[in-house]
Formats: sequence, structure tokens, C-alpha cells
Amino acid sequence: MPLNKIDLNSDVGESFGNYKLGLDEEVIPLISSANIACGFHAGDPAVMRRTIAMAKENGVAIGAHPGFPDLIGFGRRSLDASLEEIRDYVTYQIGALQAFTTAAGVTLQHVKPHGALYNMAVKDPAIWDAVAEAIAAVDSRLILFVLAGRDREKLDAIGAKHDLRIAYEFFGDRAYNPDGSLVSRNQPGALIHDGEIVAEKILKMVKEGRVVCIDGSEIEMTADTICVHGDNPAALSLVQKIRAALQASGIEIASPETFL
Amino acid sequence: MPLNKIDLNSDVGESFGNYKLGLDEEVIPLISSANIACGFHAGDPAVMRRTIAMAKENGVAIGAHPGFPDLIGFGRRSLDASLEEIRDYVTYQIGALQAFTTAAGVTLQHVKPHGALYNMAVKDPAIWDAVAEAIAAVDSRLILFVLAGRDREKLDAIGAKHDLRIAYEFFGDRAYNPDGSLVSRNQPGALIHDGEIVAEKILKMVKEGRVVCIDGSEIEMTADTICVHGDNPAALSLVQKIRAALQASGIEIASPETFL
Amino acid sequence: MPLNKIDLNSDVGESFGNYKLGLDEEVIPLISSANIACGFHAGDPAVMRRTIAMAKENGVAIGAHPGFPDLIGFGRRSLDASLEEIRDYVTYQIGALQAFTTAAGVTLQHVKPHGALYNMAVKDPAIWDAVAEAIAAVDSRLILFVLAGRDREKLDAIGAKHDLRIAYEFFGDRAYNPDGSLVSRNQPGALIHDGEIVAEKILKMVKEGRVVCIDGSEIEMTADTICVHGDNPAALSLVQKIRAALQASGIEIASPETFL
Amino acid sequence: MPLNKIDLNSDVGESFGNYKLGLDEEVIPLISSANIACGFHAGDPAVMRRTIAMAKENGVAIGAHPGFPDLIGFGRRSLDASLEEIRDYVTYQIGALQAFTTAAGVTLQHVKPHGALYNMAVKDPAIWDAVAEAIAAVDSRLILFVLAGRDREKLDAIGAKHDLRIAYEFFGDRAYNPDGSLVSRNQPGALIHDGEIVAEKILKMVKEGRVVCIDGSEIEMTADTICVHGDNPAALSLVQKIRAALQASGIEIASPETFL
Repeated sequence: MPLNKIDLNSDVGESFGNYKLGLDEEVIPLISSANIACGFHAGDPAVMRRTIAMAKENGVAIGAHPGFPDLIGFGRRSLDASLEEIRDYVTYQIGALQAFTTAAGVTLQHVKPHGALYNMAVKDPAIWDAVAEAIAAVDSRLILFVLAGRDREKLDAIGAKHDLRIAYEFFGDRAYNPDGSLVSRNQPGALIHDGEIVAEKILKMVKEGRVVCIDGSEIEMTADTICVHGDNPAALSLVQKIRAALQASGIEIASPETFL
Repeated sequence: MPLNKIDLNSDVGESFGNYKLGLDEEVIPLISSANIACGFHAGDPAVMRRTIAMAKENGVAIGAHPGFPDLIGFGRRSLDASLEEIRDYVTYQIGALQAFTTAAGVTLQHVKPHGALYNMAVKDPAIWDAVAEAIAAVDSRLILFVLAGRDREKLDAIGAKHDLRIAYEFFGDRAYNPDGSLVSRNQPGALIHDGEIVAEKILKMVKEGRVVCIDGSEIEMTADTICVHGDNPAALSLVQKIRAALQASGIEIASPETFL
Repeated sequence: MPLNKIDLNSDVGESFGNYKLGLDEEVIPLISSANIACGFHAGDPAVMRRTIAMAKENGVAIGAHPGFPDLIGFGRRSLDASLEEIRDYVTYQIGALQAFTTAAGVTLQHVKPHGALYNMAVKDPAIWDAVAEAIAAVDSRLILFVLAGRDREKLDAIGAKHDLRIAYEFFGDRAYNPDGSLVSRNQPGALIHDGEIVAEKILKMVKEGRVVCIDGSEIEMTADTICVHGDNPAALSLVQKIRAALQASGIEIASPETFL
Repeated sequence: MPLNKIDLNSDVGESFGNYKLGLDEEVIPLISSANIACGFHAGDPAVMRRTIAMAKENGVAIGAHPGFPDLIGFGRRSLDASLEEIRDYVTYQIGALQAFTTAAGVTLQHVKPHGALYNMAVKDPAIWDAVAEAIAAVDSRLILFVLAGRDREKLDAIGAKHDLRIAYEFFGDRAYNPDGSLVSRNQPGALIHDGEIVAEKILKMVKEGRVVCIDGSEIEMTADTICVHGDNPAALSLVQKIRAALQASGIEIASPETFL
């Protein structure tokens, strides 16, 4: 069944104090869901407030982007935290962001773990379960973003267990293995730099529910949201290309709360 | 009008990671309101969760105790933060704690600024106003704890402006100046170490609405909550003495949400 | 006596983790002394190592730029730290940087306090004294950078007391009061944006030992080093303009260790 | 060849700001080498200064105890840091401590990595090599503390490669596997709580160069230093028991700089 709606999500609100990161002003108008850093790996209270204001102004749905307490490593380094620590970190960060959404008169839509926390969860679904448990205890209307491609039954079961909606995320700029996993970043061909190919892959996934893998084989791939980037002007023009391709195909760009 | 109810509040949840601080297990059963650190000057996500559980178990009302982001200085050093920064810090910390109260199935009762933030607000009511504004934007049912003794009209006006309840706080172990302010800690006689005198001062304030100042003069002093400590066994036995004195006088120890 | 040598110093090494700040690669070749952040208000171990390597490659003298432990505020907010805390912070940061200079086979030339620590010292020479004491205890060959214009006798005495060389710093892009102090940043005219005027002021100070104050009066002003910036392309071109003006006047740009 | 000298080392200086940890005043007089935390996983500038003063007063050799930048986890959680990051972290922390030893007029004797950094190095000698490289670049007179029992040739080679002395460390309160490795903490019997047995094991290692493993087999085990603890009164009395046992056997307790 072809999708007629898809979400575009991007990590934003990653500035910190005197440090500016990312072209948030430019990318936010182009997406439907904003993953906002919560002060552990990036972001600070002022940045959170300002990023929420930008998302609100652009009608973009807001999500928490919790990460490990590793500012110097930008939350990208695996940390041997316990499941209890992970739950506590997620709870804390959701709450911190939610105070700002409440103050701004908007609601939080989703939670997408950041960096190493996301990657560790992809390898160990017990982490998805811990994250889901933390989310559900704070607000069961929140949607959990997880990686599409593998473990669908397990992930659906985690959502059902905690009565949470799950949004599956697709990476148009990453190569996939035939088992549905992402090709590791240190493998050749893991990252797709050609914007045409990225846009094509996204269209194929949305329209046919399929992706061509790194070995040329084709597998099923369904997703609710596509990760895009706003790090630099080239990334921004890729987002515009993706938007144009989707709109030309009659696909509506919409936040997952509208269709999940 | 003599009070028949008074709140006892104490700063708890100040441990951090491997570092234990305070006799929370012992003091929490003795108080009616717990001010829980929120991870900036003290406390961490696990400590916040565990402290809330202790408060819940003991039927103690829970408050956020936001401070400056100065763990090494325990939030006790004045920091030249702007009012906007203060609002953002308070918002962030309330939210972080509120996620844990929500997860624990309890509600947040109050907010008491910590250390230098409290002391700076006492000197500059614009800071109370900023704190109140931040609180009201997150949850207008929260009660703001402020220092009793001076600026009553200004503080009442701040509460009215933001439609927030204000709880006035009295320090039984601190000497007061005739103008209602606290005698500075570096003055002789500022701290009262004799538990009998502390208990007497508290009783007099509760029953007569008056306090004897450092110069022997007597002034009006009404308050809703009394700050007590759980740092060490002597502090604990002082709290027990205060409880016994209040109960012997027929004063009920109760959280301010029950009478404000 | 006209100077025939002057130092140009700039704050560099202010990046942190994933966050890049300043055009260090461009500004370092243009200066003679590099003030390198030490991880408290900015900078991290990798940035310190890489910035030292750049300075070494360009034959630029290296200094520690210690600040308050306030990354979120970039060390720009006054913090009510004790003199003992300030000494300890300075000691720690000098040592951290010095390990990297030793590893790189270069020596540390100077120490310039950063942001609020510098500004607080300007207002309270007891802080200069504390900083000098900390420096001298670690390495008495280090030169302390202080603000030129006022308190010369006091500052010379601090240098003599701790047997440290003092380098006086001039700001070409800041207006001066007739008493030799900097016009506060929130006063109109405090910052001079016209590069021509900045270059002229610097030349006048170097050649005549005088500066025209904000009220048009002229006062004596001698300095050993001039603060320049590498934050953006406009700042860089101003540094080039200053260099050209100095060189056209036969003034050698040299680090203070060569002439103090 | 029986040893006639052995070092007793302990982790100290682990307090932070308002948080006190460990009985440093009591344990320092009982040891010959103090491993002082450097502000990343524990310790702060003031604690470093005060701990060095205590060590100096007691004639105890001083070492840096660098760890991961994970205060909330006390440096006990594996962090996927690169070898370059590890080198930079070690360099930074050695330097920070060395500034305080220089200011106190004492020299730094050794470096012992802390917690997860130590444990990761035990599993991956490339980390020992990175640590050794960082140390050697700062000060090649420093001694590197490593775990005794396995990989002796590799570790000796790392010492030779960087021209560093290596001190091998024995744990009297930990069970050993027949391959010379420590029994993992989550195995039954991994930790030895009986002080008599601990003292016996230490004596046997020192006098015979052998240890009885968890399976009853006996293996060779030579070491230069023994890790002891000062966390609580029981730990202190164990250190006293160990000292008494060693002295009764004519073994001198001495820092490794005196015999390596």
C-alpha cells in the first residue's frame, strides 16, 4: 500500500551557549518534525526555548532528542550505562523539554534518541524497551521514533507493551544491508552523497515500500518518517530536493501525529 | 491570628552520582515539603527519582529546588545570569523534576530556588518575578516559596501578577534584623545553634506572629513554612524537637497546598 | 619613548567537542601571542593540542587563557568565587595547557585571564594578585597579561611581589575614559567599529604612548600587547590592516617574551 | 626472588565541591603512593591541592589518577573514546595535577588510570600504549601503574617503547583466574571480604611471588604495588592489618620510585 503521507524529521536545537550549530532557521520550515536536543549531549535551556518557538512558528511538530550526558563527545560515543540510567536520562530530558513546550503552549509529539543511544538501541532492543518505558511513564501520547528495516515485530511489541505509537524511520542517505540494517558508516558506500539517488531512494520507499540494498538486491522497507539534515547549505538543498520530489508525486509531508 | 498549621520544608535529593549528601531517609519522614535538587547545582536523574519515591512513600509534598548550573560551587555562588537565563534555568529544572513526579504518579507542589539564586532574589525582587513568571508558564498550580520578613507587598503583588500562590518561609536558626531581613551569615550571632532557642523562636512566630530580632526588638513575622535541615544527626534531632514543640502546642505540620 | 616592538594577541582554541568557534587557522598566522582556552569556559583537550600545534607551526607564542568553570556562559558571567578558588582554577588550567605545550616541545609564554575573570580583576586588583600568585607558584617565567590604562603602580607592584613579568594590554577597538579605564560596553561609543580608526588609535598608542578618550581628551597610554580578534572575516581583515599599519611605521610585531 | 619492598597505593582526592568521599586523612598516612583524581571523574582543583598537601605532609608519593569525563558515572562506565581522545584526556589531567605538585614543591611519581579507563586498558593493551605515549610526552620520569598477572611481555614492551618505568599492581582483595586475570566482579567469590585472607594473599605474593587462584591452582604473580582502599573504617583497618603483616615479615612499604 503506497503511502500518501510521510514525515520529514531533523535534529535541531544543537547549539550550546556561545556555540552555534546547524542551520535551524533554514531547515525547520522544510520539515514536519523537529528533534530538539535537551541539554545532555547538546542544547541548553535557552536554545531549547528558542528552537521550540521556531518550530511553533512554522507549525512543525516537536520531539525530544535525548542523548547521553557527554557534551564533549556530542553523545556519539557508546557509554556503558545501565537500563535504569537510560530510563532516568530519558525521563529527565523529556521533562526538561516538555516544560518549555508547555510554556510555549504547544505539545510534545515524539521522542527520538540521539546518537550513541539510538545506535545502541538498534543493536539491543532492551534499550528501546527501556526508552519506551520511560516515555510511557511520562506521557503515553508521545510517539517513539525507531529505525525501520529490522526487528519490526519486536519493536511493534514494545510499542504495544507500553501502549505507545511507534514511528519507523528511514535514512535516504544511508545504504542498507539485505537484512534491513544500515551499512556501517566505516564501510565503503555506506553514505550516499548524490542527492538524486537519495531522492529516488526515498520516493521508492514511499511509493513502493521497497529499497535497493548495497548488494543490488531489493527488500521491503516501510517507514513513517525520513531523517534529513540541516548542517550546511548542501544538506538544505537536498531537503528541498526531497520535498519537491515528494510533492511532485502527490505525497504529503506531515508529522506522524496526523497519521499514526 | 495564630496559625494552626505550618509546613516544615527541607532541601533533599542533593546527592550526585557516587556522592551521597544528607540524611534524606531520616529527614523526609519528619517534614511536610521536600525541596528536591534538579541536577544543576546538585542531584542527578537517579537521585531525583529515588527522592521522589521516598517523599511519596512518606506522604511528603514535593517541590523543585532549582539552582545555578554550578555543581562545583553547589549553587552557592552568585552568578551574573540575566533574568532570561534565570527563567530558562527554572523552566528546565521544573520540567526535569516534573517528569519524574508524573512517572511516580504524584504532583509537584512547589518551587523553592536554591542557594545563590534564592539569595539574589531576596536582594532583587525582579528575580522573584522572573522565577514566578517561569513557574506560572509551566504550571500555575505550583506554589513559590519566598523569604518571609520583608517586601511582603511586592511579593504578594508578584504572586497576584502571575496568579501563583506564595508561601513565606521562616528560618528558626537564623537571626533577624529589625527590618525583617536575615542577619548576614558573616555577622556574629547570625546562626543560632541552640536547639531550644530555635524551637522557641519557631513557636513564637507560629503562635504570635512575631520574632525577637538580633537587637532585642520584636517585629511582626508571619510565615507558612519553616526551613529545617537533614545534614547530620544533630540537625535531625533539632527537627524532632521542633516537631514535638509544634505538636505540643496543637499546631499541625502540613504542606502548604493544604492551607494556602 | 616610542615602542619599536608590539605584541598582537588573540583568544583562540575556543572550540569545544563538535562545536567550532573562531577562525583560528586564519588568525594565528597574523598574531604573535595566542591565548588558548583551557577547558573551563571553552576549549577541550583535543582543541588545546591542535591549537598549540598551529601556534607552534606559525612561531606564535602560547599563553593560557583560564576562565571560570562556566561553559554554558562562556566564562563571561561574573561568578562570586573566592580568591582561593580563583587561584586553584588558574593553577589547574595552566597545568592542563602546559602538559600539551611540553608534549609539543614548546614553552608557555603567558597567562591572560578570560572574560569575567579578567573583568573582575580589572575592578579588584586582589584578583590580579591571586592570579599572579597562582602563576608564580607554577612557573615564574610566565608573563601575566593585564589591562593597561590604570592602576599601573599597583599592577607593577603585584608583578614585583611575585617576581613575574607583566604585559600591559591595549584595546584598539574600545573607547577609553579619561581615567584610563575602558568605557563600559553598554555605553554608546564603547565599541569602535571603523577599522581605520582602530588602526590609527593603535598607531598613536605605539608611537606616541597616548590615546584620545571618548570625551576628546588625550591621556598617556603605554602597552606591550594589543588584543585582536579572529571571530569572523571582518575581524581578520582588521587584523591585517593593523599589521600593515604597524609594519609601515617600522614597528615590529613580536611576542612579549622577546622584549619584556 | 622475594621482594623486600612493596608499595601500597590508594585512590584518594575523590571528593568534589561540596561532596566528601573517602577517608583521605586516615588512609594517606598508611600508604606509600596516592592516586589523586584530576577533575574528570572525581576531584576538583581545591581537592587536588589539599590532597597533595596531605600526601606531602605524610611523605607519600603522588600519582595522577586520570579517568573519563564522566562525573555522574564516577568514571566507571566504559566509554567508546578513541585512542587519541584517551591520550588527550590523560595529558590534560596529568598536567592539571602537575601544576599543583609543582606549586607544592613536590614531584609527580606515577600515573594510574582510573575505573573504566583502567579496565578497558586491561582488556586492550593498545590503550596502555596510548596512555604510556601520553605520559612519556609530558614527563618520562613518571611511572605507569598497570595490572599484574597477564600480558607481562606486552606491558614490558610498552614501557620499553616509551622509555617509561612500569609498576605492576596486585589486588589482595580480588580473586584471580588461573590465566592471571582478575575474576570478574559479577562472579561469586570475585571479592575477598575476609581481611585475614587478604593479608595472607598479599604476604604470599610478596614473599613467594605466587597467588592461589579461584580454582585452587597456584600461579606465579609478581607485583610492585598493592591496591588498598580508604572508603570506610573497615577498609582502613584492613590496610593496617596489611601493613602489620608486611612489617612483621620484614617487608618495607615504599613507593616504587625508590626501587624501580
